[in-house]
Amino acid sequence: MSIVVMKFGGTSVADAARIRAAAARAIRTQKKGHQVVMVVSAMGKTTDVLVDLAEQVSRGQAPPKREMDQLLATGEQVTISLMAMALEELGAKAISFTAGQIGIVTDDSHTKAKIKSIDVRQIRRQLAAGKVVVVAGFQGVTEDGAVTTLGRGGSNVTLVAIAAALKAQACENYTDVDGMFTADPNIVPTARKIERISYDEMLELASQGVNVLHNRAVEFAKKYNVPIHLRNSGNERKGTMIVATTKSMERIVVSGAALKSKLARVTLRNVPNHPGIAARIFHTIARHDVVVDDIIQTLGDGGKATIAFTVDLGELSDAKKVVDEIAAGIKCQAAYEEKLAKVSVVGIGMQMHTGVAEKMFKALADAKVNIQNITTSEIRISCLIAQADGHTALRCVHDAFGLGKK
Amino acid sequence: MSIVVMKFGGTSVADAARIRAAAARAIRTQKKGHQVVMVVSAMGKTTDVLVDLAEQVSRGQAPPKREMDQLLATGEQVTISLMAMALEELGAKAISFTAGQIGIVTDDSHTKAKIKSIDVRQIRRQLAAGKVVVVAGFQGVTEDGAVTTLGRGGSNVTLVAIAAALKAQACENYTDVDGMFTADPNIVPTARKIERISYDEMLELASQGVNVLHNRAVEFAKKYNVPIHLRNSGNERKGTMIVATTKSMERIVVSGAALKSKLARVTLRNVPNHPGIAARIFHTIARHDVVVDDIIQTLGDGGKATIAFTVDLGELSDAKKVVDEIAAGIKCQAAYEEKLAKVSVVGIGMQMHTGVAEKMFKALADAKVNIQNITTSEIRISCLIAQADGHTALRCVHDAFGLGKK
Repeated sequence: MSIVVMKFGGTSVADAARIRAAAARAIRTQKKGHQVVMVVSAMGKTTDVLVDLAEQVSRGQAPPKREMDQLLATGEQVTISLMAMALEELGAKAISFTAGQIGIVTDDSHTKAKIKSIDVRQIRRQLAAGKVVVVAGFQGVTEDGAVTTLGRGGSNVTLVAIAAALKAQACENYTDVDGMFTADPNIVPTARKIERISYDEMLELASQGVNVLHNRAVEFAKKYNVPIHLRNSGNERKGTMIVATTKSMERIVVSGAALKSKLARVTLRNVPNHPGIAARIFHTIARHDVVVDDIIQTLGDGGKATIAFTVDLGELSDAKKVVDEIAAGIKCQAAYEEKLAKVSVVGIGMQMHTGVAEKMFKALADAKVNIQNITTSEIRISCLIAQADGHTALRCVHDAFGLGKK
Repeated sequence: MSIVVMKFGGTSVADAARIRAAAARAIRTQKKGHQVVMVVSAMGKTTDVLVDLAEQVSRGQAPPKREMDQLLATGEQVTISLMAMALEELGAKAISFTAGQIGIVTDDSHTKAKIKSIDVRQIRRQLAAGKVVVVAGFQGVTEDGAVTTLGRGGSNVTLVAIAAALKAQACENYTDVDGMFTADPNIVPTARKIERISYDEMLELASQGVNVLHNRAVEFAKKYNVPIHLRNSGNERKGTMIVATTKSMERIVVSGAALKSKLARVTLRNVPNHPGIAARIFHTIARHDVVVDDIIQTLGDGGKATIAFTVDLGELSDAKKVVDEIAAGIKCQAAYEEKLAKVSVVGIGMQMHTGVAEKMFKALADAKVNIQNITTSEIRISCLIAQADGHTALRCVHDAFGLGKK
């Protein structure tokens, strides 16, 4: 019998009514002849409440990570038991499992553990007995029995890992949107739901600020070749399938466009151009936990280099402190610009087609959007622009590649 | 090194401040040279919130007990991790354990499981490493890894079981009162804290409505001969030691007095007096989940019997339904009285001394309290009285046996 693994995130299980709605959907899937595993997150704001308690108790000191995991894992444990109750009340047979109870074994990197193995025998036994199996997402257990959590996007990692371990026919991720769109529909009214997209395109789009599915889950799915179906828990529509690259995908030049707003640029001018200087700069920045977006280096007058990089606006004040010190150390000038944005197009087909960059630049030029920096990957072209031009840029690029048409 | 096991109930861990206060107390105990294990309950009203969620999801249907346990056990898991954080923040080394993580193995009677074994090796290892070990009370785990809960008084059962398994030097139960009193101090101003009391006396007093420690924990402590120290988490005073009976205890005739209010009496008159009739009546009553307090049977005119029993007022309407049916079936008369109370004196010494009943009856007579029924056990004498006389009766009996004096 085919197995369907369905994951419901925090907003889809935020209260009793939504838990019952998710349970009803799982039962409908079971009645179509599938064996059903549900992976669930903590209810709505539960995690925030627990984190707040930990802060009160710890008075600003960072709590031990092992204990933080022990605490946070209760959030999903509450949801699995309530979900099993809802399933039973709606007439199904159900059983809930924490990660420890079914052996989702991780390493001991508390708060960001990696799954090492899953023992699916218990799940298979319960499925064979006709039960809907409800599994706690986001958590694992070390070989010593300590509770771990998988970090951001962890529940989706659980979804993909369980689907891979069970060789499930379908792996469905339920949220409150219909799937992945060619661009943010709030900005681009003609944006269209994407039916199929490759793991690599998803990864590129996620790195450009599209928060549909966390990269760790996509990477995991790519590694084990698990197709993920992004669906809306509020309706029965087909959503977006995330799959491995196929030949037919290459015919589509651009799959989607993305806009990342609230960026800042840091520019270091007159940097002595000798080997290892960039490494030293970015090592120092990383050590201070500043996350760097794109980096560009160009050679200027007199053999001196210009090194520029973008950061999220929220990181700028931290970046400034570090960069000012570096600049003083190597005797170069630092400059900072705020109110920037980045528009990107992503597509597997880019590798096979020419003229993509040209078409993008022309579209932006026609819309009178000035390009400040350009960065590219094999399947992505990004342009740094003024934040005020963001929406215009996204719309014109989306139109230029005909993304809104079927 | 000596081991002290300290248990903190729901009100003693109700918020961050109280959790920190309990942690500070454990650290003071550790600094006196002891190894410390803490057993903690769910914070304040957490259990009520979880039960309410279960009811919402289950829409009035009784939720599966396995899932109820999976849900409720999260309450203590939250407290153990927060307690470990508080201990660490206050400078101690600490580690928290769920019942599953240290192998508190129970049978599979969900919601009222019984402990079968405790594997204390992990606790001993952590104590030897200088850590305060924080254990979740109230919960266990079956051999299959399902979470169980121990039912009412369950956290105290955990306390005693862990103290027994570790052969702890001290087993301390912290609440918001100073210990066990000779009578309820709210009713009897001269009531005095009892320094030492036997398991059997505690059991008798608890059955007479003194809610200091649940009978299951006392029975467990008696079985394994674990002395329990009842203490107040708000001060450093010595509390009440609950211990095995000693010769010296027998010199004290009466240890304490108790009042059980809000009782009702059911009387069946003209009951045919043939073998098995009482068994049949009380079997039927028990089958309808009505909890019966004391039973008295007397033989009346013409070989007919009178059977009377008391129930909590809250049980009366359920009792009426069953008893009316029984009365119709065996053609006898049923009568019901409300607004009754029962005053009791309890003491191991009673077995060795005469005149105890006489002294009690005289004290009540002098206070013009009419006795409606008398029941006794080896170490208890109880008198059923009008509810309005309750406080007067408790005070005069307390005085008559000189319980208020040192």
